Order: sequence, then structure tokens, then C-alpha cells
Amino acid sequence: MSGLHVLILGSAAGGGVPQWNCRCPVCSLFWVGDSRVESRTQSSIAVSADGVRWLLVNASPDIRQQILATPFLQPSNGSRHSPVEAVALTNADVDHIAGLLVLRERQSFTVYATGQTHDILASNPIFNVLSPDVVKRSVMNMDAPFDTGIGLMVRPFAVPGKVALFMEQGQDVRIGDVTETTIGLEVSANSKRLVYIPGCAAIDEKVRLMASGADLLLYDGTTFTDDEMPKLGLSDKTAHRMGHTPITGTGGSLGAFGDLFIGQKAYIHINNTNPILIDGSTERQMVEAADWGVTRDGMKFLL
Amino acid sequence: MSGLHVLILGSAAGGGVPQWNCRCPVCSLFWVGDSRVESRTQSSIAVSADGVRWLLVNASPDIRQQILATPFLQPSNGSRHSPVEAVALTNADVDHIAGLLVLRERQSFTVYATGQTHDILASNPIFNVLSPDVVKRSVMNMDAPFDTGIGLMVRPFAVPGKVALFMEQGQDVRIGDVTETTIGLEVSANSKRLVYIPGCAAIDEKVRLMASGADLLLYDGTTFTDDEMPKLGLSDKTAHRMGHTPITGTGGSLGAFGDLFIGQKAYIHINNTNPILIDGSTERQMVEAADWGVTRDGMKFLL
Repeated sequence: MSGLHVLILGSAAGGGVPQWNCRCPVCSLFWVGDSRVESRTQSSIAVSADGVRWLLVNASPDIRQQILATPFLQPSNGSRHSPVEAVALTNADVDHIAGLLVLRERQSFTVYATGQTHDILASNPIFNVLSPDVVKRSVMNMDAPFDTGIGLMVRPFAVPGKVALFMEQGQDVRIGDVTETTIGLEVSANSKRLVYIPGCAAIDEKVRLMASGADLLLYDGTTFTDDEMPKLGLSDKTAHRMGHTPITGTGGSLGAFGDLFIGQKAYIHINNTNPILIDGSTERQMVEAADWGVTRDGMKFLL
Repeated sequence: MSGLHVLILGSAAGGGVPQWNCRCPVCSLFWVGDSRVESRTQSSIAVSADGVRWLLVNASPDIRQQILATPFLQPSNGSRHSPVEAVALTNADVDHIAGLLVLRERQSFTVYATGQTHDILASNPIFNVLSPDVVKRSVMNMDAPFDTGIGLMVRPFAVPGKVALFMEQGQDVRIGDVTETTIGLEVSANSKRLVYIPGCAAIDEKVRLMASGADLLLYDGTTFTDDEMPKLGLSDKTAHRMGHTPITGTGGSLGAFGDLFIGQKAYIHINNTNPILIDGSTERQMVEAADWGVTRDGMKFLL
């Protein structure tokens, strides 16, 4: 089948749903077995032009579980094999890079990332489990489209962002700078375009320009309101401080793309505190009424 | 209930069963849905004196999935909470430390490890996600028992080992040195003793001395034969080269503890290639006839 295949491997933000140590309202519903909240693993998608060779975008800590749940990504010939031919990273957050540690065992693939993200991998020797003689590390340059060799074109673009949490120490943390710290990806094949932006600190004109005309936009759905975490008493950090745009309120994403032609829009990288995770909630109804979908693990799109 | 509670969170070696890219005979049975092979996550156990406060031994990459499968380890009060109060590490292998990256989100606990293993964590800034103001790092000294503060005494002891794979680069890899690289743990409470040795390159007199009299010995069951991986054409590495004793053959574990009084013996850290993973296999029957159990995920021991 030609087109552009997109599999949602994980739809949650860092920590997943439920988060291991959390009893926020959403996690609490899950822990007591309320069927309105389903389990979600940490965000990652797989994209393919032919349904055979796949590009992962981000490698979540849950990648082993995600592959076991996804027959498309399981080995099918020889004694060692994987349909995963490449992994592209949108930043160096733990929930996007830790899964690389699972993709060891001498399997050949290519890791695409910005120079800055590659430097972070290089400064952590644990990533040497991906032996350089089998795993190629390739630098993505902003706004320079490249051919992945598996029928997919990728165009990376910088978005307003923030350094990874584990790199914050001792730094003056700047939010919203447009550097290679946080990027979005356009992935295209067979005249179809996916735009993937799981983390974004502000919706500027470049973000809107890239989203315009996409057949599918998967966008940062971390929190519903900017002060969601502080209000729940879980953290003093707003969505903005974490490098994310809230869905609603000033600078929110809900209405920010409404004037553009976009085939389908859906939220991904959804934090466990976000009430859109509760089936039937007012907040879920509100985003659906605004023509946004809410991704769930295992969802498939054929564009 | 007093005694010593032991939960098998994961029973497999690095990669788990099935391994993401593997079609060895055992993994192949799993991929085609043969019920004789069950899924196993990467090795980790939880130990408790009271069934309420828990020590994890090793933090596997599958720890989020393991906690979701284990009600004992789920949060039960306040907005953030975990029954996991400490994590002890037996070496710095990826399958034993990567799970620390999942145990973030500002949860307070103590990481116990040797000085050498702490140095490896410190040399990888990604582990800074465990903020030093909430996660304490405590050095374990060999043969020095210590009180964990949750009713468990722990005595670490060096065993013949090998540096972690990702630290091998550019080094002359020495196998079987008795250093702080690889350790076993005795965990005791209420007059009961668990001895946990998930990786061991040779069974010397010290290993036998520590195992002697244990109520439960959980021991390295990586491979059945020393040449298992080379014979399958999967790797040129023997069990010995990977820092493990095979179950059978010269230096094998199957008969090495037979003359000691040990309450129960079971294999853990079982590689996906090991035929004891197939229910009813000749090899499974052979280990069971020699009075060894084969751990599976979710197994509980109350000593």
C-alpha cells in the first residue's frame, strides 16, 4: 500500500499514563480501574512509505513494550532483523532518547539528530552500547530536507524550545529560544505530509507555516492549562517553564491553527495530568469540538 | 506478614524475551504465538520485610511496565508516592541501570551501588534526571552489611565479573576479576536470607560460602551452554566472555551448589537463547530434576 503510514506507538508525555509515582486525578482513576482512563506509553511514532521499512520518531523508554505490541515492527527474517531502519530525535529529553538503550544487540540502523542532540548522546558513554560499527549517527541540519533511503523524505525545522531537564543544572534556563535544542519534523512520501511537533514552547509563524497544508499534524498536547501542574500541587512548573504550549489560554494551541488548511490535527505527548485523557470529560469534548483528535497507543493513520 | 518477601519483577537477561530484533529458536516460538514460551522482562527483583516498603535490586529498562504489573509497588497515598524506598545495583550493565531513568519525577529514594558503579552513573549526565536533592546516592562497601532503614539488612560481596559492555571500548577486557565491578547481595530480615547473584563469571569459594544456608538463592541463568550464542550464529561471544557461568559444562552452575544446604535455588537473568525458557523442554526438565527452579515474571516468594 503506498501512501504514508503513521503508527502511534506511544501517546503520553514523559512518565506515561499512569506515571509510576503519581496519584493526580487522571492517574488515580487508572489505579482504581476506571475504564475512562486507558494506559498510555511515552510518545513515539513509526512512519513508513511502504509498510515494511520504518522510521521511528523518538525512542521512548517504553520502546520494547511498544514493539511487542506492534507486529509491523517485529523481526521477520534471518536470525536477527528489525523493520526499524532509522530513528530520528526531536530533542534530547529522557522520554525521547532513553529507548535507544533498548535498541542495542548489534542491530544496524541510523540515528538522525541535530548536532546538539548528538553531542549530548556523545557526552553520555552509556550510549556506546550502540556500537559505531553498526549504528550510524547522522546530523540533521535545519530546513535541509534529506532522503532516509527508505522512501521517506524528512525536513527538520527548529521550534521554540528548552534544553533537556538533565542538562538544566547550573545553567540559566532559557525558554522559547529557536535553536537546535527542540525541533519538529516534516515526514513526506507519495505526496503526503506528516508534521510532527511533540514539544513546542510557542507557536510562531514558522511553526504555523510548517503545519499549513499537512495531511496530519501531531502536536504537543502536554497540558490543558498552563498552570495545570502547580494547581494540582505536583510541581511549581508551568507548561511554559517545561517548554510546552498549553492547549488552552494565552498562547494555547487549540485555536492557533484554525485558520490553516490541515487534513487532520491530533494531540500527542499528553501529560498524565491532562484531563483530555479522561474519556467523556468536558475537556475532551472541548478539543474534539475544535476539530482536534486525541491520540491513543496503537492508533494507525494511512495518509 | 513478617518474613522476607521477594517479587520477581523480571526474569530475563538483557533484551528480555523476546528480544526486539531476535529470531533465535526461543524468540521465534514466541513470535509465532507458541504458548510454551512466555514473555519475560529484564531482570529485577523487589524485596521487603513488611510487604509495604520495598527495595528494588537493579532497575531494568522495563521497570515502568513491571510496576504497572505489580500492585505492591504502586503509589497508595498523597499526590505523589512510591513504596519503592531504595534501589541497589549489582553492576552497571544497561539492563540493570537504565530503569533509573524511569524512576524520575522527583521521587525520593536511595541508590545503593559500589563506588565504581556510582562513578559510571556520575560520568553519564543523563542520570542527573535523578536530582541530588531528592535521590540519595550511597556507596556500598564490600562485605560491610548495612541497614536499609526499611527492615532489611544488605550485605554486598564481590563476585568474579566483567565491566559493562558500554565501558569495554578501548580497554583490555578482563573476565573474572573479583572487583567491585560485579557484586552479589545478601538481603536478610526476620532470620531469613536471600542471596541474589544475577551475573557471575565463575563460582569461587566466596560465592559458595555466601550461597550456603540461604533460604533462597537466585542465580545467573544466562545461558545453558557456554557456546550457546556462537552455535546459534548470533554472536561470537561465549557465556564466559559475557561475564557469565553457563548452567552446564565446565564451570557450570547446575551442580556447583549441590553439596550445600540451600532452601530453594532458582535461575534468573535468563537469556532469550536459553532453551530452559521453553516449557517442557529437555533442558527445563534437566534443571528441574537438579532441584533448580526457573523464575518467571510475577513470581512471589515468602521466606
